[in-house]
Amino acid sequence: MTDVLSAAAPSGLSAGDTAWLLVATALVLLMTPGLALFYGGMVRTKSVLNMLMMSFVSIALVTVVWLAVGYSLAFGHDLGGVGLLGGFEHLGMRGITPTTLTGHIPTLLYATFQLTFAIITAALISGAIADRTRFSAWVVFVLAWTLLVYVPIAHWVFAPDGWIAGQLHALDFAGGTVVEVNSGASGLALALVIGPRLGFRREAMRPHNLPLVLLGAGLLWFGWFGFNAGSALGANGLAAAALLNTQAAACTGLLGWLVVERLRDGHPTTLGAVSGAVAGMVAITPSCGSVDLLGALVIGLAAGVLCSYAVSWKFRLGYDDSLDVVGVHLVAGIAGTVLIGVFATGVMTGGPEGLLHGGGLGQLWRQAVAVLATGAYAFAMSYGLGKLIDRLMGFRAPAEHELSGLDLAQHAESAYDHGVIHQGALSGSAAHRNEIHAP
Amino acid sequence: MTDVLSAAAPSGLSAGDTAWLLVATALVLLMTPGLALFYGGMVRTKSVLNMLMMSFVSIALVTVVWLAVGYSLAFGHDLGGVGLLGGFEHLGMRGITPTTLTGHIPTLLYATFQLTFAIITAALISGAIADRTRFSAWVVFVLAWTLLVYVPIAHWVFAPDGWIAGQLHALDFAGGTVVEVNSGASGLALALVIGPRLGFRREAMRPHNLPLVLLGAGLLWFGWFGFNAGSALGANGLAAAALLNTQAAACTGLLGWLVVERLRDGHPTTLGAVSGAVAGMVAITPSCGSVDLLGALVIGLAAGVLCSYAVSWKFRLGYDDSLDVVGVHLVAGIAGTVLIGVFATGVMTGGPEGLLHGGGLGQLWRQAVAVLATGAYAFAMSYGLGKLIDRLMGFRAPAEHELSGLDLAQHAESAYDHGVIHQGALSGSAAHRNEIHAP
Amino acid sequence: MTDVLSAAAPSGLSAGDTAWLLVATALVLLMTPGLALFYGGMVRTKSVLNMLMMSFVSIALVTVVWLAVGYSLAFGHDLGGVGLLGGFEHLGMRGITPTTLTGHIPTLLYATFQLTFAIITAALISGAIADRTRFSAWVVFVLAWTLLVYVPIAHWVFAPDGWIAGQLHALDFAGGTVVEVNSGASGLALALVIGPRLGFRREAMRPHNLPLVLLGAGLLWFGWFGFNAGSALGANGLAAAALLNTQAAACTGLLGWLVVERLRDGHPTTLGAVSGAVAGMVAITPSCGSVDLLGALVIGLAAGVLCSYAVSWKFRLGYDDSLDVVGVHLVAGIAGTVLIGVFATGVMTGGPEGLLHGGGLGQLWRQAVAVLATGAYAFAMSYGLGKLIDRLMGFRAPAEHELSGLDLAQHAESAYDHGVIHQGALSGSAAHRNEIHAP
Repeated sequence: MTDVLSAAAPSGLSAGDTAWLLVATALVLLMTPGLALFYGGMVRTKSVLNMLMMSFVSIALVTVVWLAVGYSLAFGHDLGGVGLLGGFEHLGMRGITPTTLTGHIPTLLYATFQLTFAIITAALISGAIADRTRFSAWVVFVLAWTLLVYVPIAHWVFAPDGWIAGQLHALDFAGGTVVEVNSGASGLALALVIGPRLGFRREAMRPHNLPLVLLGAGLLWFGWFGFNAGSALGANGLAAAALLNTQAAACTGLLGWLVVERLRDGHPTTLGAVSGAVAGMVAITPSCGSVDLLGALVIGLAAGVLCSYAVSWKFRLGYDDSLDVVGVHLVAGIAGTVLIGVFATGVMTGGPEGLLHGGGLGQLWRQAVAVLATGAYAFAMSYGLGKLIDRLMGFRAPAEHELSGLDLAQHAESAYDHGVIHQGALSGSAAHRNEIHAP
Repeated sequence: MTDVLSAAAPSGLSAGDTAWLLVATALVLLMTPGLALFYGGMVRTKSVLNMLMMSFVSIALVTVVWLAVGYSLAFGHDLGGVGLLGGFEHLGMRGITPTTLTGHIPTLLYATFQLTFAIITAALISGAIADRTRFSAWVVFVLAWTLLVYVPIAHWVFAPDGWIAGQLHALDFAGGTVVEVNSGASGLALALVIGPRLGFRREAMRPHNLPLVLLGAGLLWFGWFGFNAGSALGANGLAAAALLNTQAAACTGLLGWLVVERLRDGHPTTLGAVSGAVAGMVAITPSCGSVDLLGALVIGLAAGVLCSYAVSWKFRLGYDDSLDVVGVHLVAGIAGTVLIGVFATGVMTGGPEGLLHGGGLGQLWRQAVAVLATGAYAFAMSYGLGKLIDRLMGFRAPAEHELSGLDLAQHAESAYDHGVIHQGALSGSAAHRNEIHAP
Repeated sequence: MTDVLSAAAPSGLSAGDTAWLLVATALVLLMTPGLALFYGGMVRTKSVLNMLMMSFVSIALVTVVWLAVGYSLAFGHDLGGVGLLGGFEHLGMRGITPTTLTGHIPTLLYATFQLTFAIITAALISGAIADRTRFSAWVVFVLAWTLLVYVPIAHWVFAPDGWIAGQLHALDFAGGTVVEVNSGASGLALALVIGPRLGFRREAMRPHNLPLVLLGAGLLWFGWFGFNAGSALGANGLAAAALLNTQAAACTGLLGWLVVERLRDGHPTTLGAVSGAVAGMVAITPSCGSVDLLGALVIGLAAGVLCSYAVSWKFRLGYDDSLDVVGVHLVAGIAGTVLIGVFATGVMTGGPEGLLHGGGLGQLWRQAVAVLATGAYAFAMSYGLGKLIDRLMGFRAPAEHELSGLDLAQHAESAYDHGVIHQGALSGSAAHRNEIHAP
């Protein structure tokens, strides 16, 4: 897709494209610490470290799986030409040297850029199961899920010989299905497996630190530019359009959510503002390379309004998607991917047009199939995997851990200490780095 | 100005320049969340969310105005050739496709880069009216101010056919007038319209979270490299010089403020350190592309020392510029813009020399005119606009909101919750995402 | 070293390489505020601002020394051809204009990139002497240390005509000796000069804010990509490999530390996770441009495991390296630099091979010499300098300052204020910007 607008040399490494992708990779990596803070600020004080830890450990786990196996199975030559899985030829990054290229950038860079997408998708899921998950079970889940869920879907959509990209010809520029629908459907599955927090729908569970939430949102916004505009795989006009579309949709998403709040509840909130911006960016993720500015503005607005309602479905339906992975990522991910079928323009795609530009229902249908296939696969596999882990080791933390807080119970730490001296109770790194050691 | 030192191809897209501008745009966008935290840490606990929200909503509001109308009126062909306003030909970004170029970068990217400047200028103003502003009035102000104040000034200074750039030939590399003098003068106007906080000059109003202030300052510093070096519009020697000058001035600004504190008050403070760094960066913003290293070091130092005194003028004169938009941005913005007339060197500008390099008083005079024109216009327009909004809907929050804190009153939220259960009092997103919903 | 894999033009400025180095410079600069938060979260509430301030003031002090003298003595033509110190020809950046190039990037940019390394090395040292240092003594130390310790070592290792790079032919891609061993050995020296905190080994000294520590770690991780991949001095395959290796080692470092904690202490901690990631990145800093993926994974893992033990040596040996500059930076810096002699591969280095790839013991020996020389020099000089400063002005804060907290005593500030009104006690910037001034 990048060829349409790229001005890079026809072959060989482009330093300019490589510079942009190096940065984009760093930006997307930063999104996961950003997400950790975004989520961490939303939970209660007693479990914030556990929330942060689920993201940070995902960075490490997904990286190891990806470099050992994942990259090869996602981006190796398609096995059997059916578009379901890549080959084994690049296990452990075998056969790839610093001079190997993918397009105009080093393949090692392309693999790392793609890795950062896998990381944040895993981390996103943790928001659905906040405050009640056994940490060791999460570790096992992330390892298995990366291999069994993320990697195949990435192959389907992001590899040119994957069935969604190469046969169905659905469009997903930066991961509306691979990242958003996937994490949302997987999160829903786990929320059902693990069950609601104690006190869900009865007790107030307010964010313990909203400035932390806004900081996280700021970092996510910043990193999303790398996520979306980096998906052009070069520093060109397509990247610029993706950047502008991302900013436009984030902003109408923010405004859409605030307007609903103002009319419905009387007050625009900071949590609503950043939730709306995230919803807008989720929705524009698949579509930022296929729509024009008007499309971006409308898609963002639709996502902001829609998600401002969708986040309360969990209370009516009873699944405890604690930090709204379903209400934001699944819902806006579906909306953004499907709306490509309405707003796609040939100026951007170099081909397919949406309904609005006279393209008929064809593209809309292809988009819907992509959403259904990835969503159903992610949900079914994550549900099965969750059930298996639950049976083998217990996915849910003991009730007394949940009540006293996961931080102390699972990590032997507490987030804040403003002066009271605690002695003897802690082990682990705090002990080894900062505690009493004299006899 | 970028032509002087650029090594880019004479025509066509440069991937290297585009890569740098993509990043610079992301960096400048990040400055506004950074500013939100910088400001948010300085106010009292009860109004921190309102402070953050004024920045975040500005991102969204300015973006919509800019894409719909602002870019065209700022950078479209000059209306009538008098240099006052751009044309209407690019309303809604009409006529600009991903392949349209400005210099060696996509015009869509140039427009987004410029957008991020408009955003932070609006957000800066909010520091002058902290803790006492009606949120809905701020929303109206930002919409109108972007169109009526920011857009014309940006045309005057940043568009080649604007009167300050094209006729007066004043130099402003990255926005000393457009951003700094403008926000400072507008902030002063609003502070006068709205009046001082209750308890101003009588009660201690200490920053509630200085680590948050330093975090914000760190993000601002980081983003400022995109702001100043990005204004070279390419990855070249001029960008490198702007980067180095920015770092130099930030550092002498920091040291200048600390030395004054040490001598005057006995203690160097963290708030002083970061205020000095910001003052230095404000002053070098217009001048970083026109002066050499010695100029940068002196300009930064002058700004740090000057502003360490200027921030207390408000107590003597009685205007409550709460977070020192006047004392830092207006004062250092004037200093930095005017001092170009002293320190400009042909090695950097490719032409005009300042007083120190034998250029006579001509450039100094042009710089002073630019400051006066932009400052006076911004002050007068913002004052009138503020008065109008105050009459129509009330610009100031009710006294009881101010006393109890704007967060609860205007946004139905509170920033921190370390364990106490609040029930029933909140509406909005916290309620919809985290509150009790069972009957 | 960058020539091996670079695709840039044989001479002249490369906009792509310049774009990447502009960003890398900004990324490394951000590491120091990141470090400030990382360290700041680990100390107790009463001294967090002092901790932050030691980093922020280092930015300013090192910048001024570097631009005035340091760059020239580090990267000017070698004095006498012995490889010990650079020349005086670029004092005050004399003779360098925006069009001067180093490789394919502007020399002004190269000098600023190198500056950011000097800054963070100085700031790292502060972790060893947390909570008990006189601020004015720290200022004097940083000024002298930059000139007398950092600059010569940087010349030895990073300048092509320095003795370690040019005669010994030891490999250090991004500063395992210059930054890590140097800061670690200097920190150890100062910890010995200043002595342990009051209550060391008797009282619990827990991190006051672990989310702040994780935020700092996230920013460090993000910035480290600029640190390591930027050291390729271009946007090319070598940069891509360095980026991937950095990510790989960070992740196995994180996992290694957590596994030790789980087995040894029963709980994996957030502090352990980020400490492990930092240890992995420290170890891969010298080696990321010389080893392949397997090497990176092993080096990171070794560092994570090793440092998880090394951080408690201080309790047994009695030196109070408060925030583990020795236990993480010195130990992992040594490990990473020496292991190049085992894992170096000609595919990356364009020449030297390590033990594992059939290169014999030669490179291992050269690496060990480089570590010993830089470590011994840094320790001896810092110890002497520390003793001198201690005699002249006292390096340690008075005991009553340490007990009541350095923030109030040294900076007339306190980090957090959640509502209590303090009057009259504060001077400095908080007073000038936010306090009572009416008669």
